[in-house]
Amino acid sequence: MAVNILVLNGPNLNLLGTREPEVYGSQTLADIEALVRRRAEELGVGVGFFQSNWEGALVDELHKARGEYQGVVINPAGLTHTSVVLHDALKAIDLPVVEVHLSNPHAREEFRHRSFVSPLATAVIAGAGARGYEFAVELLADRLA
Amino acid sequence: MAVNILVLNGPNLNLLGTREPEVYGSQTLADIEALVRRRAEELGVGVGFFQSNWEGALVDELHKARGEYQGVVINPAGLTHTSVVLHDALKAIDLPVVEVHLSNPHAREEFRHRSFVSPLATAVIAGAGARGYEFAVELLADRLA
Amino acid sequence: MAVNILVLNGPNLNLLGTREPEVYGSQTLADIEALVRRRAEELGVGVGFFQSNWEGALVDELHKARGEYQGVVINPAGLTHTSVVLHDALKAIDLPVVEVHLSNPHAREEFRHRSFVSPLATAVIAGAGARGYEFAVELLADRLA
Amino acid sequence: MAVNILVLNGPNLNLLGTREPEVYGSQTLADIEALVRRRAEELGVGVGFFQSNWEGALVDELHKARGEYQGVVINPAGLTHTSVVLHDALKAIDLPVVEVHLSNPHAREEFRHRSFVSPLATAVIAGAGARGYEFAVELLADRLA
Amino acid sequence: MAVNILVLNGPNLNLLGTREPEVYGSQTLADIEALVRRRAEELGVGVGFFQSNWEGALVDELHKARGEYQGVVINPAGLTHTSVVLHDALKAIDLPVVEVHLSNPHAREEFRHRSFVSPLATAVIAGAGARGYEFAVELLADRLA
Amino acid sequence: MAVNILVLNGPNLNLLGTREPEVYGSQTLADIEALVRRRAEELGVGVGFFQSNWEGALVDELHKARGEYQGVVINPAGLTHTSVVLHDALKAIDLPVVEVHLSNPHAREEFRHRSFVSPLATAVIAGAGARGYEFAVELLADRLA
Amino acid sequence: MAVNILVLNGPNLNLLGTREPEVYGSQTLADIEALVRRRAEELGVGVGFFQSNWEGALVDELHKARGEYQGVVINPAGLTHTSVVLHDALKAIDLPVVEVHLSNPHAREEFRHRSFVSPLATAVIAGAGARGYEFAVELLADRLA
Amino acid sequence: MAVNILVLNGPNLNLLGTREPEVYGSQTLADIEALVRRRAEELGVGVGFFQSNWEGALVDELHKARGEYQGVVINPAGLTHTSVVLHDALKAIDLPVVEVHLSNPHAREEFRHRSFVSPLATAVIAGAGARGYEFAVELLADRLA
Amino acid sequence: MAVNILVLNGPNLNLLGTREPEVYGSQTLADIEALVRRRAEELGVGVGFFQSNWEGALVDELHKARGEYQGVVINPAGLTHTSVVLHDALKAIDLPVVEVHLSNPHAREEFRHRSFVSPLATAVIAGAGARGYEFAVELLADRLA
Amino acid sequence: MAVNILVLNGPNLNLLGTREPEVYGSQTLADIEALVRRRAEELGVGVGFFQSNWEGALVDELHKARGEYQGVVINPAGLTHTSVVLHDALKAIDLPVVEVHLSNPHAREEFRHRSFVSPLATAVIAGAGARGYEFAVELLADRLA
Amino acid sequence: MAVNILVLNGPNLNLLGTREPEVYGSQTLADIEALVRRRAEELGVGVGFFQSNWEGALVDELHKARGEYQGVVINPAGLTHTSVVLHDALKAIDLPVVEVHLSNPHAREEFRHRSFVSPLATAVIAGAGARGYEFAVELLADRLA
Amino acid sequence: MAVNILVLNGPNLNLLGTREPEVYGSQTLADIEALVRRRAEELGVGVGFFQSNWEGALVDELHKARGEYQGVVINPAGLTHTSVVLHDALKAIDLPVVEVHLSNPHAREEFRHRSFVSPLATAVIAGAGARGYEFAVELLADRLA
Repeated sequence: MAVNILVLNGPNLNLLGTREPEVYGSQTLADIEALVRRRAEELGVGVGFFQSNWEGALVDELHKARGEYQGVVINPAGLTHTSVVLHDALKAIDLPVVEVHLSNPHAREEFRHRSFVSPLATAVIAGAGARGYEFAVELLADRLA
Repeated sequence: MAVNILVLNGPNLNLLGTREPEVYGSQTLADIEALVRRRAEELGVGVGFFQSNWEGALVDELHKARGEYQGVVINPAGLTHTSVVLHDALKAIDLPVVEVHLSNPHAREEFRHRSFVSPLATAVIAGAGARGYEFAVELLADRLA
Repeated sequence: MAVNILVLNGPNLNLLGTREPEVYGSQTLADIEALVRRRAEELGVGVGFFQSNWEGALVDELHKARGEYQGVVINPAGLTHTSVVLHDALKAIDLPVVEVHLSNPHAREEFRHRSFVSPLATAVIAGAGARGYEFAVELLADRLA
Repeated sequence: MAVNILVLNGPNLNLLGTREPEVYGSQTLADIEALVRRRAEELGVGVGFFQSNWEGALVDELHKARGEYQGVVINPAGLTHTSVVLHDALKAIDLPVVEVHLSNPHAREEFRHRSFVSPLATAVIAGAGARGYEFAVELLADRLA
Repeated sequence: MAVNILVLNGPNLNLLGTREPEVYGSQTLADIEALVRRRAEELGVGVGFFQSNWEGALVDELHKARGEYQGVVINPAGLTHTSVVLHDALKAIDLPVVEVHLSNPHAREEFRHRSFVSPLATAVIAGAGARGYEFAVELLADRLA
Repeated sequence: MAVNILVLNGPNLNLLGTREPEVYGSQTLADIEALVRRRAEELGVGVGFFQSNWEGALVDELHKARGEYQGVVINPAGLTHTSVVLHDALKAIDLPVVEVHLSNPHAREEFRHRSFVSPLATAVIAGAGARGYEFAVELLADRLA
Repeated sequence: MAVNILVLNGPNLNLLGTREPEVYGSQTLADIEALVRRRAEELGVGVGFFQSNWEGALVDELHKARGEYQGVVINPAGLTHTSVVLHDALKAIDLPVVEVHLSNPHAREEFRHRSFVSPLATAVIAGAGARGYEFAVELLADRLA
Repeated sequence: MAVNILVLNGPNLNLLGTREPEVYGSQTLADIEALVRRRAEELGVGVGFFQSNWEGALVDELHKARGEYQGVVINPAGLTHTSVVLHDALKAIDLPVVEVHLSNPHAREEFRHRSFVSPLATAVIAGAGARGYEFAVELLADRLA
Repeated sequence: MAVNILVLNGPNLNLLGTREPEVYGSQTLADIEALVRRRAEELGVGVGFFQSNWEGALVDELHKARGEYQGVVINPAGLTHTSVVLHDALKAIDLPVVEVHLSNPHAREEFRHRSFVSPLATAVIAGAGARGYEFAVELLADRLA
Repeated sequence: MAVNILVLNGPNLNLLGTREPEVYGSQTLADIEALVRRRAEELGVGVGFFQSNWEGALVDELHKARGEYQGVVINPAGLTHTSVVLHDALKAIDLPVVEVHLSNPHAREEFRHRSFVSPLATAVIAGAGARGYEFAVELLADRLA
Repeated sequence: MAVNILVLNGPNLNLLGTREPEVYGSQTLADIEALVRRRAEELGVGVGFFQSNWEGALVDELHKARGEYQGVVINPAGLTHTSVVLHDALKAIDLPVVEVHLSNPHAREEFRHRSFVSPLATAVIAGAGARGYEFAVELLADRLA
Repeated sequence: MAVNILVLNGPNLNLLGTREPEVYGSQTLADIEALVRRRAEELGVGVGFFQSNWEGALVDELHKARGEYQGVVINPAGLTHTSVVLHDALKAIDLPVVEVHLSNPHAREEFRHRSFVSPLATAVIAGAGARGYEFAVELLADRLA
């Protein structure tokens, strides 16, 4: 059976490349998606992308992921630190999850040190920029192969 | 005047019956609504149902409740522990509120021990499964009779 | 086999009806027992009542409950927030427990926000007044049926 | 109407005079009662005394105080720092209360710095030894005169 | 170049004038907008208004503000205390921000004492009612002139 | 009756214009007083000014304010975060108070996040520089008119 | 040798009788001094009085107390909760100290629950109003006799 | 002089052997007493046993221990973590104390990590099951020999 | 198969008998080893001893213990309260462990109240001096027999 | 210039494959080194390996890394959470660092949630097993190319 | 240009030599000033001395120091731990500061462990008695030479 | 008898002069030792030096110091904040200790604010650079003369 992976990006990540480039780099989200898509093709897995600034939309997408996808790569952005709702959604769909952050939250403000996603994540990759997404897809491709 | 009660369900509760059945049981939300509707009929009160994974939608619904409903039964799910916005909405509409949880949050993770809804609730019923909704409707029916 | 339920009331609840009626209502403990007894009869279950201001007496009663009763409804009153001894007694007897509070402790002082009973309770019902006891008996009757 | 004051002493105070005299002095509880009785006579008020090492006994005594007494002087000893039950009993009987400690708890261990009685006390007198009881009776006699 | 200022209002502020008037006054949001519009005209600046109960909608609006507006006046309401997402959106668009609260959060519940917006705000004005918005527009008009 | 407003400045504000200009701007306290006096004249209210590095002097001035003034604008500077004495003085004189800070304390060190004045203040204006004083006088003029 | 006692009153106590009478009563500081002076005469001890809103003045007075006085009655008011300087001054002069509060700080705001004076005090009397000063003088007279 | 040791067991320990055997083992309290008695005989010391679910009864027993016993072995069970009263009783009687726990509280819930008895104990033995009591008696026999 | 027990002593214990004798007694580590060896012979078990001031050496020794020993008695001294590395080593080797302390850490400084070893220990014996080692060996001999 | 990367493994990692396989997998450290070496060859970079259970040895190795290596991959194991010394060593040598953990510490005990290495790390990869090392080398190879 | 150093002493230091000699030694402040003056002469720098029990006076003196002095030696005594005002004054005058304490605050009460002066100090010297002042002057003389 | 002083330097200090010169200056450890040796000669005392990155080596050296040395100057570097083992070693050898830090830890990260050495130190000198060592030797020379 073909493996499909959902790559979910949270609030404000649509601004990538224009927002705080000294923290997040100058690649746009489209650039990252292109890189990930290419990597996924090499690995022979399918990928779907979804970004929203709306917590509810991200949750709905996760619910739909069941059946369509076998794994989730998620960069929850600011919701990482506050959303029990996202935690519950990830727990409910029961798919392997890799949490990705472009920069390293532990080298930033105190309020970015807690993650409601990490306790449910198979793996956490932070500070590896766009490569983090590639690593995440690679990890899931391996595990789901 | 006929009594109408709004039964509001928060994020991820649409997955009931399929999600962590060892915690939440195997009833679907539709099953629960059917039970509650039947109980409401026995009690001679009207009930309306609304579920959303979007905080904003829940708040809009609460705003509209004024005029249409005389009481609210709410299972705020993951928003229970994080949403000052929901707290403010409930305070603003000034209707009697009964907070319901299918399982007992105090027997779960530390971050589920705080509720922003409880300080405004007439009553809190947790761990009684679907019966919790029936008890809640019964309580409000009594008080609003 | 007939189902028997122990209804245990903790310290100061003997004063019900005369003490802080704005918080606890004007029903006496005898009134509540009468209500509960009637509801139990309807449900076809037996009920026993015990109230004490003495933690030790409550613990002894719980120990004796094994064999005589199949479930416990407990309003631990002020002991809720401080008694590891009660926690241990409930754990030891290993019967299903429903915790009841007449008012909602989460809408009161900070020191009433912690419960040593909740982690062991099947269900927690707070702020429903005397109805809370009826709901509790109903829940246990269901589960033990 | 004659004024009657209940003087309640908590756990371990029966050992006064023999226990840690460097902290509590060498007077026995009987000595203190004699002093207080004499002072009460001068003030024209009645006094009753009760000491117990049992929280439940103290609560029962407080319940009985309603009707018999118009004020309470209490040295809750170790229960000061842990008993929500005593707090609730004092709140329930709704009589003016003066809290007395022979030594000054704030100059002792950290765990003696919190009092569940102080928020309900008209006055708190600590470190004045047996005189603290006399002052307490005097205060209540004044207020109840 | 003409100066344009976005006035953003968060969850539940659509109920202004009807909700807790003893805390928030009896002016409606439309009343406030009229006042602000008049003041903006006097100052020769343009103003746009947006209110939503949906965090995602507020974030989208902030993203669109870049290019259209040179400054933001924001009353984040309940999101003030919980939304890292809003913090990130404000940081990303890099416009001068004035935070406004109708009442003074520091004179209310503990959970209203933390603001995720204040660390990014040029100025914070609280408790000045509708005048707070006028002051905010005036400040930005000055700085952007 | 003519309205008079006391503008009180706390410790170190006499150095304004020479001290940390990147935080506090280059205006001297005399410049600010001139601005405020002009604004007060436009509004038709009287203003008095007082600055001291001595907590006791500020308290004495507040005591004298009763009778002479109908409102207080206060920038408590470093005392904001530590002085229960100032809190008590403001509470005692029972005049409307507007708290002003030239910069935004919530964007500075942790120890500047607590204010003993805010719980008593009608309004709090921070980060608006000298304009903050003008806004404060305007607010009080409105309320006292 | 004649016994002399210094009665020291801290910030804002000069306003007694006019300030928050529901908390502090309607007696002025002069009334209290008159009561205390009369009681001191009965006990055959001398008393000196000093009140200041200035921490430094209170410290200077305490330093001078050595030699002149054999004991100190102090109501540190708002300084109670914040002044290490006062703590050090009391420790340095090494005289017996009785701490007095007109009302009971433990029944007020959280920030009034810590006292820097209590660890050095022989006795603490709170909530006894003006009688607290009389009791304090009586205690010291006894001990110094 | 013959050495006598009091072995005191706290709340719920009467259920030993029937309660949570995976934590506490299958020996009854009588089994443990038999073991301890035999060991005491070998060591030539006397032992007395007392168990109660009532804190007050344990305190009374400790008070009586003075004169009759030269050392105390205590398993305070749930009171370990909450009872200042027991702490005071042990301090008052001033006998050497060995604290025993059947299981290791530090490997259990957070609320079992604090002991009010440990600061007064000569030795603490946890997790050694019934042998812990034997070790405790042996230690005291040694020290009191 | 013969039972062998490793007795591991951590940093500074080589100074025993010369270091703070009022806390640790006057026995040297060699004295203790002799006592333990004698007791082990009586019990028919083998014992090996190792002491080091170097965390790394203790860890290496624990790794080597697998195969050679069937149980570990460890007095981790100062490493008790800080070493996750030791915790991990003990977890990794998966042998029964008894934690021993010569004095009672809970009666000493706050920073000695946490143990990274206790959650992994079968039993904890503190304050029993050299006897603690004997008890520990006895316990393991029993369990491993 | 050829790129060389130091791969440093902390305490207890020498036991890999034999220790808690359900947490760390069944690969030995030699297996991981072989994988990493192969990946490094593909990437055309050199790798050196060092493992120690001794903090001092790890620090010495890091000091020597300057000059020999251009980047560091470190799995600090138990030292992650406690070692300021390691933090200082990494800061001192000023080479890019990638922190690797085989499992996800945020899904384990509370004491594993703090890392003294993360604030200095370019990237953090946790829970990716041996792949985490490969990703880390790949990241450094990219950045140092 | 000649170097001048201000030596500032805070509250209660005027009592030196008479106050708690076991903590602060038996030298008077005049003795210390003589020692420092002699040392300053050897170093060829000028020194000025100022002591006050009044925070305001210390702040005024610091303000005047600008122009007159090139460095400050300060022993803030009890103000160390509480005064944001002193912190602000030191920050405002922007001169190199050496903080001196006669005894070591970290070996005393918890409330002496925080310093509002240390974050601004070039150096901190504690527990060196009068020598601490000499070292401080020497350090500043070096740096300002 | 000749006075000998051990100067002990902790982890990473061997890198001095090459590591973070903006924090620690450009002197090497050899430079500092030369300065200290010269100063010691002037004072007529002997000095020994020891540096290690290994906690165990530092502890061993401290143990050997007894007999050879009469005082210890220690810069524990990163171990300052974490090592109970070092604390115990210093306590065990019972020699006067002066703690030295090149920079001021209280002006750096939060985790550098706690010292396990300070409670045992005669004096603490921080931020005085290499001079701190000279001052420390001078202090000990004085006290040991």
